[in-house]
Amino acid sequence: MISSREEVTRMILASKVRKGLQWREAAEVVGLSKEFVTAGCLGQMTFDKAQAEALGQLFELPDEAIAWLQIVPYKGSLPSAVPSDPLIYRWYEIVSVYGTTIKELIHEEFGDGIMSAIDFSMDIQRQADPKGDRVNVVLSGKFLPYKSY
Amino acid sequence: MISSREEVTRMILASKVRKGLQWREAAEVVGLSKEFVTAGCLGQMTFDKAQAEALGQLFELPDEAIAWLQIVPYKGSLPSAVPSDPLIYRWYEIVSVYGTTIKELIHEEFGDGIMSAIDFSMDIQRQADPKGDRVNVVLSGKFLPYKSY
Amino acid sequence: MISSREEVTRMILASKVRKGLQWREAAEVVGLSKEFVTAGCLGQMTFDKAQAEALGQLFELPDEAIAWLQIVPYKGSLPSAVPSDPLIYRWYEIVSVYGTTIKELIHEEFGDGIMSAIDFSMDIQRQADPKGDRVNVVLSGKFLPYKSY
Amino acid sequence: MISSREEVTRMILASKVRKGLQWREAAEVVGLSKEFVTAGCLGQMTFDKAQAEALGQLFELPDEAIAWLQIVPYKGSLPSAVPSDPLIYRWYEIVSVYGTTIKELIHEEFGDGIMSAIDFSMDIQRQADPKGDRVNVVLSGKFLPYKSY
Amino acid sequence: MISSREEVTRMILASKVRKGLQWREAAEVVGLSKEFVTAGCLGQMTFDKAQAEALGQLFELPDEAIAWLQIVPYKGSLPSAVPSDPLIYRWYEIVSVYGTTIKELIHEEFGDGIMSAIDFSMDIQRQADPKGDRVNVVLSGKFLPYKSY
Amino acid sequence: MISSREEVTRMILASKVRKGLQWREAAEVVGLSKEFVTAGCLGQMTFDKAQAEALGQLFELPDEAIAWLQIVPYKGSLPSAVPSDPLIYRWYEIVSVYGTTIKELIHEEFGDGIMSAIDFSMDIQRQADPKGDRVNVVLSGKFLPYKSY
Amino acid sequence: MISSREEVTRMILASKVRKGLQWREAAEVVGLSKEFVTAGCLGQMTFDKAQAEALGQLFELPDEAIAWLQIVPYKGSLPSAVPSDPLIYRWYEIVSVYGTTIKELIHEEFGDGIMSAIDFSMDIQRQADPKGDRVNVVLSGKFLPYKSY
Amino acid sequence: MISSREEVTRMILASKVRKGLQWREAAEVVGLSKEFVTAGCLGQMTFDKAQAEALGQLFELPDEAIAWLQIVPYKGSLPSAVPSDPLIYRWYEIVSVYGTTIKELIHEEFGDGIMSAIDFSMDIQRQADPKGDRVNVVLSGKFLPYKSY
Amino acid sequence: MISSREEVTRMILASKVRKGLQWREAAEVVGLSKEFVTAGCLGQMTFDKAQAEALGQLFELPDEAIAWLQIVPYKGSLPSAVPSDPLIYRWYEIVSVYGTTIKELIHEEFGDGIMSAIDFSMDIQRQADPKGDRVNVVLSGKFLPYKSY
Amino acid sequence: MISSREEVTRMILASKVRKGLQWREAAEVVGLSKEFVTAGCLGQMTFDKAQAEALGQLFELPDEAIAWLQIVPYKGSLPSAVPSDPLIYRWYEIVSVYGTTIKELIHEEFGDGIMSAIDFSMDIQRQADPKGDRVNVVLSGKFLPYKSY
Repeated sequence: MISSREEVTRMILASKVRKGLQWREAAEVVGLSKEFVTAGCLGQMTFDKAQAEALGQLFELPDEAIAWLQIVPYKGSLPSAVPSDPLIYRWYEIVSVYGTTIKELIHEEFGDGIMSAIDFSMDIQRQADPKGDRVNVVLSGKFLPYKSY
Repeated sequence: MISSREEVTRMILASKVRKGLQWREAAEVVGLSKEFVTAGCLGQMTFDKAQAEALGQLFELPDEAIAWLQIVPYKGSLPSAVPSDPLIYRWYEIVSVYGTTIKELIHEEFGDGIMSAIDFSMDIQRQADPKGDRVNVVLSGKFLPYKSY
Repeated sequence: MISSREEVTRMILASKVRKGLQWREAAEVVGLSKEFVTAGCLGQMTFDKAQAEALGQLFELPDEAIAWLQIVPYKGSLPSAVPSDPLIYRWYEIVSVYGTTIKELIHEEFGDGIMSAIDFSMDIQRQADPKGDRVNVVLSGKFLPYKSY
Repeated sequence: MISSREEVTRMILASKVRKGLQWREAAEVVGLSKEFVTAGCLGQMTFDKAQAEALGQLFELPDEAIAWLQIVPYKGSLPSAVPSDPLIYRWYEIVSVYGTTIKELIHEEFGDGIMSAIDFSMDIQRQADPKGDRVNVVLSGKFLPYKSY
Repeated sequence: MISSREEVTRMILASKVRKGLQWREAAEVVGLSKEFVTAGCLGQMTFDKAQAEALGQLFELPDEAIAWLQIVPYKGSLPSAVPSDPLIYRWYEIVSVYGTTIKELIHEEFGDGIMSAIDFSMDIQRQADPKGDRVNVVLSGKFLPYKSY
Repeated sequence: MISSREEVTRMILASKVRKGLQWREAAEVVGLSKEFVTAGCLGQMTFDKAQAEALGQLFELPDEAIAWLQIVPYKGSLPSAVPSDPLIYRWYEIVSVYGTTIKELIHEEFGDGIMSAIDFSMDIQRQADPKGDRVNVVLSGKFLPYKSY
Repeated sequence: MISSREEVTRMILASKVRKGLQWREAAEVVGLSKEFVTAGCLGQMTFDKAQAEALGQLFELPDEAIAWLQIVPYKGSLPSAVPSDPLIYRWYEIVSVYGTTIKELIHEEFGDGIMSAIDFSMDIQRQADPKGDRVNVVLSGKFLPYKSY
Repeated sequence: MISSREEVTRMILASKVRKGLQWREAAEVVGLSKEFVTAGCLGQMTFDKAQAEALGQLFELPDEAIAWLQIVPYKGSLPSAVPSDPLIYRWYEIVSVYGTTIKELIHEEFGDGIMSAIDFSMDIQRQADPKGDRVNVVLSGKFLPYKSY
Repeated sequence: MISSREEVTRMILASKVRKGLQWREAAEVVGLSKEFVTAGCLGQMTFDKAQAEALGQLFELPDEAIAWLQIVPYKGSLPSAVPSDPLIYRWYEIVSVYGTTIKELIHEEFGDGIMSAIDFSMDIQRQADPKGDRVNVVLSGKFLPYKSY
Repeated sequence: MISSREEVTRMILASKVRKGLQWREAAEVVGLSKEFVTAGCLGQMTFDKAQAEALGQLFELPDEAIAWLQIVPYKGSLPSAVPSDPLIYRWYEIVSVYGTTIKELIHEEFGDGIMSAIDFSMDIQRQADPKGDRVNVVLSGKFLPYKSY
């Protein structure tokens, strides 16, 4: 009996290590970006039936797990409010150090509102650089204005 | 007597509202990106003498404040570990929901290490879109590998 | 020198008590709903120039305060993550007790996504009831779907 | 041996996914609103014998689980004080941003007291809208006055 | 300018020490129980005009403070979630040690619901005892049932 | 192997539901108040040999569990510092709202010291009331004075 | 206007540094142990009129401060739940490392109950030792038994 | 497979209850104080081979557990930063109320430095008293001075 | 099925105790410093295939565990934000007491930037000393400057 | 009136910026290491009379501030348990990632005990490196063993 999406995430992670798979292979069998598919495999997004079955085949998941992949999960991937992992912490630090800056500049350009984290996409790429390659990330989120009523 | 950088930040904010200034005007007088200059005005970055004086003139700051702008500040712009402001929270949410995904994909591409938040730059732009304009943000950070020793 | 929106909120509260004003009077001079105007007066929303000036006249605010009312504030009105005030706590409790229920039912109806807190309005009314009058609140938020990419 | 209501919740969730059930089906067999029945299935409300047995049949629960459904549970459905799930967080944000506003307006209308979260009901509906369908939620809670003594 | 109820509480406390007053004297001039009046003076309850004026005279408060006493305050009298003061902590400990017991026994007697903290009164008395006098506290709160809907 | 009192509490809860028992039946077989016996069954108090054996018979516990009931437990029945359960939260709220009031009134009557939570008893009763029955709770704790030394 | 005991503590600390006083001098003028008097000066204990006046003379306090010294303070001397100061932290560490040991041994000797922190005294002495002098602290607290009822 | 010292602690506790042992018996077979041996059995101290084997025989532990008793454990015996158990809390309260007092008096006697919690011993004794027996605890810690460098 | 690196850490710890191994033996079979190899065995660093296999042989790990050792782990070795273990706490205390000092001195020497914790190595050695041997730790981290952009 | 060491720290910081001083100048006038003197100026260490007067002259402090520099301060230089400043966070991260490693290796070399943070010194130096200069920090702390008693 599988009673939570976390169990499915653990099954995928175990299978990925055991079979030596890559996230880009998962993205390929699903036919979507590596960002969306990895997030989904880690329990943050929902797949449709065909996508879930493709992942089920790749990771050799039981039917019950494939059913869970089609259920909207309780989101949030971090075990603590401030993440301890250095790679993820750097992102938290960007929000901490630049948070008020991002706020000021978006408001200066758009007025009161937010950058959506739902109507949102992310693209992570290697950027070659003679002084050391860089991680280049493009975040795109729809601006949603507060309106008076 | 000014005894902390926060006081200078408050002076700049008060002056900005009183005089109706824009962050891009601050960026222009300094001659750097709007992202860096805004972060600096909000107490997160350090300016050299000429830059500090240009800002001092723009915001009509006393000499003591101009001296403080050249001192490295204690960084971190948020009043709580989980930010309450909706715009900034969306960024926290991106880290929360996509954190493990970002980690997995950078490791898959680069191996063990981090994306630097120091050798780092950010560019925030409006992206026109018929379904509603978008906020487009490019983050660029050098990859720093863990090496065994 | 006013260096934060909180100071303006305190000025409004002090003036409201001193002059015996009502929030609905503020809503009237602004010409918007009592919910939006009260939220704005409490430092959560932004007013345009005419609205800010109307409020400035009502609450007898100095020009600098009127300028601050037109600046997007750092939002979040509660002094602690779990609110201690009994009236506000009941709302926190509704989120705590019914949170997963709301999530399940919205997903069942709409699929993966959220109910917007930005493209959002709220209406609070007294509902007469022989067993004791009730507070009737209508919350309306646009559904924003997660889309795969 | 079942020693907590959470185990029953997990059994219901597992069964729901395995059998492809909907919360509205659960509401129908019980004969109450989808809001109350879902909350009960998620471990927040108590059912009487007939209701519990109807749910037991629908979700194929053992007798011991049916007995637990009739026991008042320890309530609170969220794993952290500030919820990480984006849909539930938006509700937390409404309380955070509008909390003091709600307080002011209820007090202005009713005087000192609270809106009950016990003598309370909730109704969640889809509201068609050409600019994108909306989630419409009606909350109704009895006003309970503080009385001097 | 007084901009919060806490300032009024501080004025009352300062006046009480300076003039050597007792809470029971405050209760007498108001004509209500010592429990309600003390709570009100400490910023937790609301007074009507006559009551506020009687207190204003007793504590020699300015008119603005008397106006604030008639405004519903943001409640919660403790500076931290777990109180450090030994007397108040013992009450927190009673909730911590006996919390689940109280819950079980009220549910066994009344079914699902709560004991109201709003339709509530408290009476604190000295109980003479040869082995050492006791504090006797009677708490009375209306039972509010959860009802299915 | 039973290695903590919590396991015994879980065994008692499971047995109570399975056998449809009431806390007052437990109180009867032990011969003490329902408040003390329930607290003990929930892992907060210690029983002597005869009491533990009577409970063991009622709840059909193994000998090892009966031994554990005679061991002083690590106390505190709540899973979080601020309880999420509405019934228990109301008690936390009473401490939060009335905490400083209780402190002031006990000090006014007794001087510096505390109301004991150890030399303490509690009695919970239904109080019939035409406007809705009430929960009446009497708390009795010895006053313990701070003495100078 | 003095509106809290903390202000008096700050006045005493400032005066102590300015005049180069020692806590033992304060203990002498009061005629009590250095432990009790220091705790009282730091805002944790209450003095009677004669004691407060003696301290007022020593520290050159105004009458209002002397009145505050006779009022029971809100206790708890640490700015955070886990103290950052190394000397005080070592005491926190003793509780953390030895807490369960102290509990087991007191229960083994006395049965269920506590060691009182109210009917309590403390004596801190230098103990000469050729390998380095030691701090010797004797804590004495009345054992208070839980009794069944 | 035993993979943590906590498992050994649980085995010792289970065995102690099952066999009706006392901590002083454990102290006797080891030949050290009851304070040190109890702390070690509760996972806070390290035993040598002979001591671990003596405990292994007393508590009937497997060889693997005896090996773990000789490994330095991760220390800290409390499940939360502020302990909920009343007996242990009283010690936390002593640190909270008297923390700054202890600090002041040790500094007054010894200068800047700390009382060691490592070069430390504790002795807990019953002190007969006609007004109720007392717990007498002697803490002895080497003074360690901060030195300038 | 192994589904997390923590399980591998627990297997290594259990094996280390059972077989009486030393971390320096692990360092030897891997051919790297004891600091890096221990950190890796404790789930903080990543090994290549040959290194993982050497550790697998030493600790008698199954193939699946050897595969997990080559996967980048979620880092952070402490169970709480403020560590309770006295040895580790002393390091936290160094950061707490000397944190701002380290910051000031690095900035004075290098300007704005950080000392890398990624391009970093650590060396822990015993330093003989007649007054008691010392732990000597050399930390070496690349300075990474913030640059304006 | 100066009533806390923090005020003196703020005076020193203000003076340092206003006069353009360096920490090494402070170290020189005191005649101790830059690490100790900076820590002392930042409110973490205590100075003797001559040292305090030298600093008083350098920073142009009033006599009262010079007196405070000779008083042992309440230590801990960080405003939050997890520091937000990137430079200081990297040190927190070292403790978080390497904490258990440091613990294991010190215990393997020395047995149970700690590395002192009191009998401790620190030396921060620039280490030239063609790939980018490094920060080299040597920490030296006396090993203090736990002894059985």
